[in-house]
Amino acid sequence: MTSLTEFALIERYFSHCGAERRDVELGVGDDAALLRPPVGEDLVAAIDTLVAGVHFPPDAAPGSIGHRALAVNLSDLAAMGARPAWALLALTLPKPDELWLEGFALGFGALARAHDVALVGGDTTKGPLCITVQLLGHVPHSSALRRSGARPGDALFLSGTVGDAAAGLLLEQGRLALEDMAAAKELRARFAFPIPRVALGERLRGHASACIDVSDGLLGDAAKLGAASGCGVQIEFEELPVSPALLRAVGAERARHLALTGGDDYELCFSVPPARVEELERALPRERWDYRRIGTLRDAADAVVTRGGTVMQFSHSGFDHFSS
Amino acid sequence: MTSLTEFALIERYFSHCGAERRDVELGVGDDAALLRPPVGEDLVAAIDTLVAGVHFPPDAAPGSIGHRALAVNLSDLAAMGARPAWALLALTLPKPDELWLEGFALGFGALARAHDVALVGGDTTKGPLCITVQLLGHVPHSSALRRSGARPGDALFLSGTVGDAAAGLLLEQGRLALEDMAAAKELRARFAFPIPRVALGERLRGHASACIDVSDGLLGDAAKLGAASGCGVQIEFEELPVSPALLRAVGAERARHLALTGGDDYELCFSVPPARVEELERALPRERWDYRRIGTLRDAADAVVTRGGTVMQFSHSGFDHFSS
Repeated sequence: MTSLTEFALIERYFSHCGAERRDVELGVGDDAALLRPPVGEDLVAAIDTLVAGVHFPPDAAPGSIGHRALAVNLSDLAAMGARPAWALLALTLPKPDELWLEGFALGFGALARAHDVALVGGDTTKGPLCITVQLLGHVPHSSALRRSGARPGDALFLSGTVGDAAAGLLLEQGRLALEDMAAAKELRARFAFPIPRVALGERLRGHASACIDVSDGLLGDAAKLGAASGCGVQIEFEELPVSPALLRAVGAERARHLALTGGDDYELCFSVPPARVEELERALPRERWDYRRIGTLRDAADAVVTRGGTVMQFSHSGFDHFSS
Repeated sequence: MTSLTEFALIERYFSHCGAERRDVELGVGDDAALLRPPVGEDLVAAIDTLVAGVHFPPDAAPGSIGHRALAVNLSDLAAMGARPAWALLALTLPKPDELWLEGFALGFGALARAHDVALVGGDTTKGPLCITVQLLGHVPHSSALRRSGARPGDALFLSGTVGDAAAGLLLEQGRLALEDMAAAKELRARFAFPIPRVALGERLRGHASACIDVSDGLLGDAAKLGAASGCGVQIEFEELPVSPALLRAVGAERARHLALTGGDDYELCFSVPPARVEELERALPRERWDYRRIGTLRDAADAVVTRGGTVMQFSHSGFDHFSS
């Protein structure tokens, strides 16, 4: 009975792939999953697709693809201040390659368990390599972070460093060469195994007025936060946080350009009203939570980058899925 | 700013595509959707992918693709006895073709509104044509239908007629020719615009001991219901419900073979304990709900088809996504 092939694959690699959760009434194997969401919380739902050759090199390590497919969704939930809980996986594969599936499930499963996410359902289909993950989580009623809550004058913050993943992808594609092997390894890992800021997102509830995750490039994503809030954003070029590895790899000038426009870092960009900045810094010490101020929300409609008071000129596009 | 392309597309075609629901706190446009599930109900989650050239002809009408992408998920929820509520759409397209998107959104939106389903989130990516829909719904706590509740001796029922969609696909592919244009039109519509049995699924709660939707072929899907329940199934060939159109198109013998193994009909196959059959038939009159008994669950491990008491021989495969 040939139809066992597909189901045997799913069974073998995905039935115990994620975390075990007591609020899963019924997981993989029926027509749908049955879940018990916590009372008094809103449900949070995100979906993201990674396409071979567009979002990752076709020959990328399957463990990295599995990690990233979940990480991009975890990052979406982090941007809402939500706690992730359950994932569904739609996997389209040219053929049922066991080694590939094993690696993919390892990468996906390790990140899922790290965030207590259960894999509760999925669909495996034949076709060009493409992965869609749908992630569900929850957040106390009416307390989710949104893109739209910023006001002119709010301080703009960013977690971690940006630009690393873009440099990592350039290295992966052979479009950048480095003699500094340690830096190269670090940058590649930032692309291949991004760390979504789930814990920070949850802690930002009650502090941030708006939040977005940096997936398409800081400038474009900060502009989206501004637009959703009816504001403009001003980012100070010299304040852009770049990693020592990126500085060593490409120098300060190019590093900050990559930081502005490179995608795939999955840091959080968030706004905080001036009167609440001190409270934020007390509640979430910078040395532990790793964020810094990069600019200000302004009473305008556009996103600008300034350097010592002067506005810089850019073609400030994010990563457009149809133009890449 | 090129990244507007994608968002403008999503905005234009999908922001008002489905139903408006008061339990949607935040829909398309932020990092994730915020939903308010009803208290006392379990959450039900399904995901299904349609790949061009595998699940539909690449040149299929976009309205049909939009309809089917949602219908296959609605059918999964129907099989659980659940009420659908919110959908997320991951759409991978070679290029942002406006006419195609308009047609797709029309097909998707009409079916979504018919079932009061809100489109609350999505992701649009560049790549080979592929559609993943994730559907969420709810069902009163601990009352969902499952595949696993059947017992030997239970009566096996099927809604509607099966085999039509398979014939419709053969017509679509030019692998079947018919002079009877009315029959051809009917069969094609069964493939292109299947009607998921959502209302029946909800009504079957408290009656059916197990339920599955017929997506991959009746024999294979009934066997899955049996296997999940630790039973075998026996289906009576002469009782297989086939439509007048299919009978006219291919004759009684071939019609019943298509009914056994053809996929994509999205009817419900369900079991009912013998002592509760009368109650079922009183509560859900057949003339209104359109179902019939096709066999029996048995104390065995396999699925058999009988004809006047004799077991028929088949290669009883469902539709395997990796062997097609």
